Amino acid sequence: MALFHFTIFIISSIFVTSSSSFIHPFDPLTEPELRLVHNVINKRYPVGPKHRFTYEYVGLNEPDKSLVLSWHSSRHHNIKPPPRQAFVIARENGKTREIVVDLFSRAILSDKIYVGNGNPMLTTEEQQAATALVLKFKPFRDSMMRRGLNMSEVVVTSSTMGWFGEAKTERLIKTIPFYLNGSVNTYLRPIEGMTILVDLDKMKIAKFKDRYKGPLPKANGTEYRISNLKPPFGPSLRDAIVFQPDGPGFKIDGHVVRWANWEFHISFDVRAGVIISLASIFDIDMNKYRQILYKGHLSEMFVPYMDPSDDWYFITYLDCGEFGCGQAAVSLEPYTDCPANAVFMDSITAGLDGTPTKKSNVICIFEKYAGDIMWRHTESEVPGLEITEVRPDVSLVARTVTTVGNYDYIVDYEFKPSGSIKIEVGLTGVLEVKPVEYVHTSEIKEDDIHGTIVADYTVGVNHDHFVTFRLDLDIDGTDNSFIRNELVTKKTPKSANTPRKSYWTTSKKTARTEADARVKLGQRPEELVVVNPNRKTKHGNEIGYRLLSGPVAGPLLDQNDYPQIRAAFTNYNVWITPYNKSEVWASGLYADRSQGDDTLNVWSQRNREIEKKDIVMWYTVGFHHVPCQEDFPTMPTLARGFELRPTNFFEQNPVLKTKPIKLAKSPKCTPKND
Amino acid sequence: MALFHFTIFIISSIFVTSSSSFIHPFDPLTEPELRLVHNVINKRYPVGPKHRFTYEYVGLNEPDKSLVLSWHSSRHHNIKPPPRQAFVIARENGKTREIVVDLFSRAILSDKIYVGNGNPMLTTEEQQAATALVLKFKPFRDSMMRRGLNMSEVVVTSSTMGWFGEAKTERLIKTIPFYLNGSVNTYLRPIEGMTILVDLDKMKIAKFKDRYKGPLPKANGTEYRISNLKPPFGPSLRDAIVFQPDGPGFKIDGHVVRWANWEFHISFDVRAGVIISLASIFDIDMNKYRQILYKGHLSEMFVPYMDPSDDWYFITYLDCGEFGCGQAAVSLEPYTDCPANAVFMDSITAGLDGTPTKKSNVICIFEKYAGDIMWRHTESEVPGLEITEVRPDVSLVARTVTTVGNYDYIVDYEFKPSGSIKIEVGLTGVLEVKPVEYVHTSEIKEDDIHGTIVADYTVGVNHDHFVTFRLDLDIDGTDNSFIRNELVTKKTPKSANTPRKSYWTTSKKTARTEADARVKLGQRPEELVVVNPNRKTKHGNEIGYRLLSGPVAGPLLDQNDYPQIRAAFTNYNVWITPYNKSEVWASGLYADRSQGDDTLNVWSQRNREIEKKDIVMWYTVGFHHVPCQEDFPTMPTLARGFELRPTNFFEQNPVLKTKPIKLAKSPKCTPKND
Repeated sequence: MALFHFTIFIISSIFVTSSSSFIHPFDPLTEPELRLVHNVINKRYPVGPKHRFTYEYVGLNEPDKSLVLSWHSSRHHNIKPPPRQAFVIARENGKTREIVVDLFSRAILSDKIYVGNGNPMLTTEEQQAATALVLKFKPFRDSMMRRGLNMSEVVVTSSTMGWFGEAKTERLIKTIPFYLNGSVNTYLRPIEGMTILVDLDKMKIAKFKDRYKGPLPKANGTEYRISNLKPPFGPSLRDAIVFQPDGPGFKIDGHVVRWANWEFHISFDVRAGVIISLASIFDIDMNKYRQILYKGHLSEMFVPYMDPSDDWYFITYLDCGEFGCGQAAVSLEPYTDCPANAVFMDSITAGLDGTPTKKSNVICIFEKYAGDIMWRHTESEVPGLEITEVRPDVSLVARTVTTVGNYDYIVDYEFKPSGSIKIEVGLTGVLEVKPVEYVHTSEIKEDDIHGTIVADYTVGVNHDHFVTFRLDLDIDGTDNSFIRNELVTKKTPKSANTPRKSYWTTSKKTARTEADARVKLGQRPEELVVVNPNRKTKHGNEIGYRLLSGPVAGPLLDQNDYPQIRAAFTNYNVWITPYNKSEVWASGLYADRSQGDDTLNVWSQRNREIEKKDIVMWYTVGFHHVPCQEDFPTMPTLARGFELRPTNFFEQNPVLKTKPIKLAKSPKCTPKND
Repeated sequence: MALFHFTIFIISSIFVTSSSSFIHPFDPLTEPELRLVHNVINKRYPVGPKHRFTYEYVGLNEPDKSLVLSWHSSRHHNIKPPPRQAFVIARENGKTREIVVDLFSRAILSDKIYVGNGNPMLTTEEQQAATALVLKFKPFRDSMMRRGLNMSEVVVTSSTMGWFGEAKTERLIKTIPFYLNGSVNTYLRPIEGMTILVDLDKMKIAKFKDRYKGPLPKANGTEYRISNLKPPFGPSLRDAIVFQPDGPGFKIDGHVVRWANWEFHISFDVRAGVIISLASIFDIDMNKYRQILYKGHLSEMFVPYMDPSDDWYFITYLDCGEFGCGQAAVSLEPYTDCPANAVFMDSITAGLDGTPTKKSNVICIFEKYAGDIMWRHTESEVPGLEITEVRPDVSLVARTVTTVGNYDYIVDYEFKPSGSIKIEVGLTGVLEVKPVEYVHTSEIKEDDIHGTIVADYTVGVNHDHFVTFRLDLDIDGTDNSFIRNELVTKKTPKSANTPRKSYWTTSKKTARTEADARVKLGQRPEELVVVNPNRKTKHGNEIGYRLLSGPVAGPLLDQNDYPQIRAAFTNYNVWITPYNKSEVWASGLYADRSQGDDTLNVWSQRNREIEKKDIVMWYTVGFHHVPCQEDFPTMPTLARGFELRPTNFFEQNPVLKTKPIKLAKSPKCTPKND
């Protein structure tokens, strides 16, 4: 093990040391920078007993794309980097402030009050304060008492309340109590029947109503910690590690990752989680790196539940915009969350008071050796010559896990030497369940229980997951077009003079405006390609990247239903928009209690021109989830994703000349005896 | 390395030795058995100069399902096994004979002449003989001479000719010449313009026509052997092996594989390739194995090309039925085709003369450690308690690679401890190309070139791949039903008294007859589940397995076009039929020159009852392939598949009690110095 750990150590230290060496325009704000931002703002808005000022979002104020590109393309980055700025969303006396701080001049560049709909992300501290408040709230304690529950076993969690046509949208949240009492699997024992609203600005209970006393699922069967489970155990699996005798194949310099033919910047944001930037691939024929992805990240997750009743109707989460997919990212466990050959990165973000906090191991990066074949061929037609040429596949994965309460979302960005970028979302964790009076389907009286009985007195409620990615593709440059290459059936022309009656061919349409590029997948056979119309291969094919979608799901809610209006960005599986610095969050900059007036769908209705423009692709990975008993008490991962694959981007197979793995270098391994 | 090789050695030897110990009803015919079959038949049909008798197919005559099941369910299999029989398809004087030989009584049980449409599979020897014939054929040599080609560099390959309405369908094949001359990548240098038919029974040239002299692509750029490629090389990847300190977790006893909670039989057939039988999973709560898959295998591959011209219109292959997906399976390379921890199996099949021949390493079996997460949860709501529980995922993969001429098909059967069975098909190898006069799109005069210019004077022709699997599911027993669980949008009832306007719920329909179970995927949101209506979970849910489809593709040919009539089994993505011993091959028992009168589509038209019956699922993995330059000269693997996932089959998460991997057991590894 020694040598192995040693390898890991080297890498992480490379990372840590050089991360402090120079600052890349896309680097997340460093600890000193976060302190600076706090100091600058604190001068103008000194916090005091009379003056509440909270930091709801602190992140990098994205530098102008043109500046980043010219800096990035300059030799050794020897020109002046773009100005380094922080973007802060704060709450001050019930108002939302947007503040931009310049880190060089240490000055506030802009400071305005936001007057539109919707509220900033909920911070962890605010949620904790709110739930603590409820736990101390006398009427709530009385309700628990009336239910004969032991307060010390009650856990209160926070939930956004959505928007359902209300004129005023103060910064309120709903809180939901759960009863542990013998369980640690909080979410499987909800205490229903109460409406408890907390005002986050005033930090006061805004409404409390005990509507009814519902049933409560049992604690037994909810345990998932191996240490507390009883035999029989199993299935039992053998231990294994991926061993790389020459060490990992990637280098991390600050936040820039270099591996095989790939180079990209990896960053972290409290709302998006991982951000991949300036991903480019080295073309051995051209002997240079070529741009592919300027910026790619999770933009929003829409998770509506399908029970319209009072306890459930509002559960229509916009996880990233309301809870922060980065804020909810968890510390990853070596060997289990990520394989033995993984390297980890920490995150440094600002707390509610603006001061930096660190979370360790929120990202892991590893080379994936799944036993796949990159390409192969066996040739047996050539007389006296049996040829078998094979290249095993390897890829590089950057992983985060975002746990928004009950659900754990595994988000993988995978890079392949063949040029493909695969993005996959895995769902695991714990179901959201509804307590019921019965344990068997035969006892069901209602005509619709909105889910499946997954355990005694427990219904796993039907729901969707729509995971929307923003992909600012720059295929070999910023001027790109979106091609819809439809496959159409043709009758064989008489001239062919063959008995074959039909065949298919491609009918190419370039999307002129946004309307042409709204795609519901699976409705007709077509290839979707982002091309650079100014670049052609030596054979005249347009240089491009193709979207290979995975299984898709579309929204089933009424288009006029409030949650769907707010999540109208899921109305299509694929959208293309012209690059616009302000269009980053598909649900709008202010998603909590939003009214759907700042969504991808709204932007797209402007129907802007997208031909030969700097365009952005939006792709939604969708799941309809009808729970089953296997999902209880924890859910085996269900993963889906999509692939961006080079299509006439290279002149030939880009991994043709990848050298095969040298068998002689296989290591000598002996089990450790302790 | 020592210890590691040692581990491999043990396993393979276990396999080899015990494979000879006892014979499982599903074991492929052994070498002695094949000899026996040959002797028995040879007695009746002595081969002589006047009497041509060839073995076109020799395989296990599938024993009655009822007998297999009662044998399999008997304790220690201590009852009489089903009779062991061979099924032989032979050609004798231009007639097809079907012969069943009983291996115990050493007698011919039945022997009849087949009179229907279509011909048996082409054997490798027949194809070699036919192409050798052409190479010696004077008019052909003259044509080559006229083209100024060097005969010693000409390679001839065989192609089936399909069926296009001809009344008579003698056993003819078309042959296609290629010109190596500096290349070993045969398929990239076709010599077009000739029609050359060979009669396989008479082994004579049936037709020769030199229609025109076409262009010929260059040899340079077609090389793919690393030994012959020139710098620059790359991208360069680091070596890695999966090391299992306790050795592999699976045991192979004869052809029975046991791993984690899985047990299944693995066999090999010249037409189907790998056959998975009697797959069952151990349920720790019930403390017993439970049936899932009685038999699963590749049934057919339909690969139509989309150029209707004289040189191409007939290229509409039924790869398994015409060329044998098992016959075309290649010997797998350790470390590259399969990871370092793989174990290999050989195949023993009958040659054209009925005598056994062995091919080594046609199957590999390995544990896949891709760095995935089986399930996880981080709980942070419980005060003073931060819980993170994670199980890394491991699966067992059985792999074959079938190389039908230019294309290499990677077929993986993957078993997961969570109960999922994943089947994936990877496409790699070499494109089929058409020589053209031009090198650049600007030179194209035709309105349709039927593909993409992938290299100088070379068009990669558009085509499809439809890979159809036969899955005889027995979910917890043979009586199963097929459920279509549609997701339908509902308006919120007034009674709910909430502002939520809509939600979705499930509308369950049980397929009564075959017509109800023909599914074109992607047309509506629905879950497809095979259930055992006689078994319910303790909560009353029907025990079942769900089909999770991957990306799908449907046929685009005219329904009345000859190739589509023969491949009508691709008209739907999913079919359900009642179990019928004779319905195994979706394209019919005799696929070569078939007329579509014995396809899955024809069987299904009988519209038999399938509710509470022993049913078989048919699933087609589809690809529309518009070639791109990256596919030249070899193609990076493009993989697709589907998953069969337990859905209320278990009472709870079946891997909840899987013990986490013990970090302390990680090995000490040092690079080998030689």
